[in-house]
Amino acid sequence: MKIKTPTLADIEQATERIKGEVHLTPLFHSRTFDSDTGTVAYFKTENLQRIGAFKIRGALNKILSLTDDEKSRGVVTFSSGNHGQATALATRLENIRCVVVMPENARTSKRNAAEGYGAQVVAAGTTSDDRYERALGLHKEFGYTIIPPYDDHFIIAGQGTCGLEIIEQRPDVDIVLVPVGGGGLISGCALAIKSKKPRVRVIGVETNGADDANQSFRQKKLIRYGKTSTIADGMRNLSLGNLNFEMILKYVDEMMTVSDEDVISMMRFFFERMKIVVEPTGAVAAAAVRIHSSQFQGEKVCAIISGGNIDTNDFLSLVKQS
Amino acid sequence: MKIKTPTLADIEQATERIKGEVHLTPLFHSRTFDSDTGTVAYFKTENLQRIGAFKIRGALNKILSLTDDEKSRGVVTFSSGNHGQATALATRLENIRCVVVMPENARTSKRNAAEGYGAQVVAAGTTSDDRYERALGLHKEFGYTIIPPYDDHFIIAGQGTCGLEIIEQRPDVDIVLVPVGGGGLISGCALAIKSKKPRVRVIGVETNGADDANQSFRQKKLIRYGKTSTIADGMRNLSLGNLNFEMILKYVDEMMTVSDEDVISMMRFFFERMKIVVEPTGAVAAAAVRIHSSQFQGEKVCAIISGGNIDTNDFLSLVKQS
Repeated sequence: MKIKTPTLADIEQATERIKGEVHLTPLFHSRTFDSDTGTVAYFKTENLQRIGAFKIRGALNKILSLTDDEKSRGVVTFSSGNHGQATALATRLENIRCVVVMPENARTSKRNAAEGYGAQVVAAGTTSDDRYERALGLHKEFGYTIIPPYDDHFIIAGQGTCGLEIIEQRPDVDIVLVPVGGGGLISGCALAIKSKKPRVRVIGVETNGADDANQSFRQKKLIRYGKTSTIADGMRNLSLGNLNFEMILKYVDEMMTVSDEDVISMMRFFFERMKIVVEPTGAVAAAAVRIHSSQFQGEKVCAIISGGNIDTNDFLSLVKQS
Repeated sequence: MKIKTPTLADIEQATERIKGEVHLTPLFHSRTFDSDTGTVAYFKTENLQRIGAFKIRGALNKILSLTDDEKSRGVVTFSSGNHGQATALATRLENIRCVVVMPENARTSKRNAAEGYGAQVVAAGTTSDDRYERALGLHKEFGYTIIPPYDDHFIIAGQGTCGLEIIEQRPDVDIVLVPVGGGGLISGCALAIKSKKPRVRVIGVETNGADDANQSFRQKKLIRYGKTSTIADGMRNLSLGNLNFEMILKYVDEMMTVSDEDVISMMRFFFERMKIVVEPTGAVAAAAVRIHSSQFQGEKVCAIISGGNIDTNDFLSLVKQS
């Protein structure tokens, strides 16, 4: 069965559906960054979003779109990261049973966050395949609806609300840069942006240790990696989702990469100069503005900071000055 | 000579004078903090202000109020902290010569910050008396105008613009909590708030290792300590300024203290839950809402985050989890 890709109307409906529970996150600006890069740059601060990442947008849109029957049976998701927390919070708001399948070696802080929102955490293996299999088993046994992290109509429409906000907050923006993991954020945002302002360029960014989407984009076929290696944990998935890939080919103008070192340096700038906490994946798009700044001279760019969730000591060991 | 204390009109003039160069910093909010404390709490994010602290408000108001003759001769200030940086930036914007007297053991990051704004840094001893003497010497020798950190009509009026903003952003606020060092921020904010909304309570907060203003407030005489001991470096001064003390007695309702441990715990909450970087002094007022929450049940409170400037490794060693 071919799943229909979302439309602008789906994103506009998502905006209506989730408003009141989701923050309209501000665009931050730094004169120092502008003068360092020769751009006028805005940062969409989804690290200041509820649960500390954009993921609440898609998860909440999905949960609110379930039928009453599906709601009464509950949901299961497989994620050790922000999508797990987002699903846990979204189900708590709607009083729906939620199971989050995490790897056996998940950090205590991740477990605590999901449990803190009232979800039940189940440990399963260490690979994403292990987690998916376990979620599928729970779906079959208990009838829980699976809430996928990105390859889903409602998830994509929800994430697209972030793109719509950017266009409303800064109608004069020239370029929007988006970090790419499974492709949920960029597919939704690119759809929103291109539908409202076709002249705005949308650029996806990955780290070079996890550049499967760059390869897929260039070869115009969905590439699946055997493994990835990057500090940007939101980019460690092995391929784009199917729907996401289809939409990226249709709406995205360009793909870029940055190094892990570029990401750490950007996190340090956010911390020292802008006083905000950004997780590695969240710093990837902004890092691209710096590293590839020669391509953006005089342009109004917006880099999405996708999230700020990182274990405190992990952050400290990355950002500390030797 | 008795110096006239500022009025609401002075603060309104300061607002006009400095706007365009100073950010209207947002009020942040955390549902978790509210539910932990039983309050509705807003945080005035002066850590996101230019130079990373409210001090630019007063410094810029003072610099813009100098005569042409004073501007042409240049200025000197004595501060290793945020006031030094603020004066350096304010003078750069106006193209005025600036000397910042710092202790010999000042952190390289502080020197670099002031020099980055084009100020000349002069090292003098290790005590605040050493620095003041040196500044006075430079004033006498070169005719530089001294830009005091808090005990000054224009500095106080400038800092008061922060209080005016709070009342405009949240006309329904019940209580505003302000960190107290030399008293520049609280004297200006209390004047602004009480002039606009006399029913709003203004509370000053110090750490208990530097509670000279609490003592001065209670004894109704200006107490000067021999030394202070606190991680909140903005509170290490030994007494309130004269003008500041006079205004605090007139406009402030109450004074409180918190411990250094309360401050660190609050910094960690800001970092982990709200994704913002707050220096110790900046976390003091918010810490009081938590620690004394039984006094604020159901109230709409606003705690001023005065700044976010702290050496990266110092921050990390305070906030890291053992």
